[in-house]
Amino acid sequence: MQNIHVINAEPTFLPHLRKLHAHFPRLRIVLEHATTRAAVETVKSLGATVACTITAHHLALTVDDWAGQSWNYCKPVAKFPDDREALHQVIREGEVELFCESTEALAGLGHPRFFLGSDSAPHPSMKKSTSSPDHGCAAGIYTSPILLALTAHLLESFGALDKLEGFVSKNGRTFYKRDIASTDGNSIVRLRRHKACVRGTYTLKDVEVVTFWSGKDLEWEIDYQG
Amino acid sequence: MQNIHVINAEPTFLPHLRKLHAHFPRLRIVLEHATTRAAVETVKSLGATVACTITAHHLALTVDDWAGQSWNYCKPVAKFPDDREALHQVIREGEVELFCESTEALAGLGHPRFFLGSDSAPHPSMKKSTSSPDHGCAAGIYTSPILLALTAHLLESFGALDKLEGFVSKNGRTFYKRDIASTDGNSIVRLRRHKACVRGTYTLKDVEVVTFWSGKDLEWEIDYQG
Repeated sequence: MQNIHVINAEPTFLPHLRKLHAHFPRLRIVLEHATTRAAVETVKSLGATVACTITAHHLALTVDDWAGQSWNYCKPVAKFPDDREALHQVIREGEVELFCESTEALAGLGHPRFFLGSDSAPHPSMKKSTSSPDHGCAAGIYTSPILLALTAHLLESFGALDKLEGFVSKNGRTFYKRDIASTDGNSIVRLRRHKACVRGTYTLKDVEVVTFWSGKDLEWEIDYQG
Repeated sequence: MQNIHVINAEPTFLPHLRKLHAHFPRLRIVLEHATTRAAVETVKSLGATVACTITAHHLALTVDDWAGQSWNYCKPVAKFPDDREALHQVIREGEVELFCESTEALAGLGHPRFFLGSDSAPHPSMKKSTSSPDHGCAAGIYTSPILLALTAHLLESFGALDKLEGFVSKNGRTFYKRDIASTDGNSIVRLRRHKACVRGTYTLKDVEVVTFWSGKDLEWEIDYQG
């Protein structure tokens, strides 16, 4: 019997990641949307060519949130409180690594090989609402309209607000060897502290989608005048 | 951090069960609706005063079935394939225990301290369909109208059809010290092999409920003429 399922699929994959990296140590690999302590520890233990993204919603959810609540169901599924804690820790901690030029450059970056990957999925409400025993709901969570504010809100909640720029903007560009300094000044995004309730519903051509965190407060918003 | 959640709540309770049994070895305890190998092994390892029920739906489901499918969501949640296999094994295996009068009496009974507990939950369809991000669905699965046929169907699927009477009728009565021989002849239920599709919906006073296994075939049905 193959005892593989939504809870252990990610840890079961990790030996394959190790093997890939051992065979191709210069190949740049990104483990997308990690959800487990095992994945965080594996990526940390591998070389500078292996990185990892984390979604905003996986910083908020655990298995109890999607059990019986299809709107919080996504793949990979959110795991256990200790796994979520590992995601928080690796963003909070920071770590000096050889491929960075100086330790000063790491201030406020968090662990340089971990960064945001949104995996935002704008499934129509109808497909998120499980209405029939014949078919389940669509896997995925829609965060795009609130992604930066939500990420700031969550990072602040676990003491990592100072790592926001690194986690969202710099670590990924550094890993992908994109020059940070060349960024057009017009594409800078500023957030401001402003408590507001998340608007739940967006409609495009009669198709309604509902945002994650709908109806809850966020402590931050994008500063369009900034 | 308390790392307790729907997946490990049952194994986390087992040390308390052991402690209860150690303090009160003559107290008759039934662990209702076991879903894990750990629970099966714990109950087996304890004395003749500790028994365990298993639902029909937990013989069918694993975590992948309720991930994103609220109709298959119940508590305790269905666990992993290896856990389901342990539920099958303990029904299939049989075991001679001291409180039974003779080994002959055990033929066809399966492990005598494990028996069916339906936990059938007739939640209205509206409450099983997760229609809002504000609230999850009701936990529970409705099996009453098909319980015996479903149990026969599933036991046959894993080679335990000969354990049906013990699992459904005799083991529980023996554990509860109810006299089996005194059963009124009119309350005997007979099943016959007859393949039929499960009727999905039952309505009572405008409230619709949907049965587990809706739209799928069962190989058995109650023989009302029998």
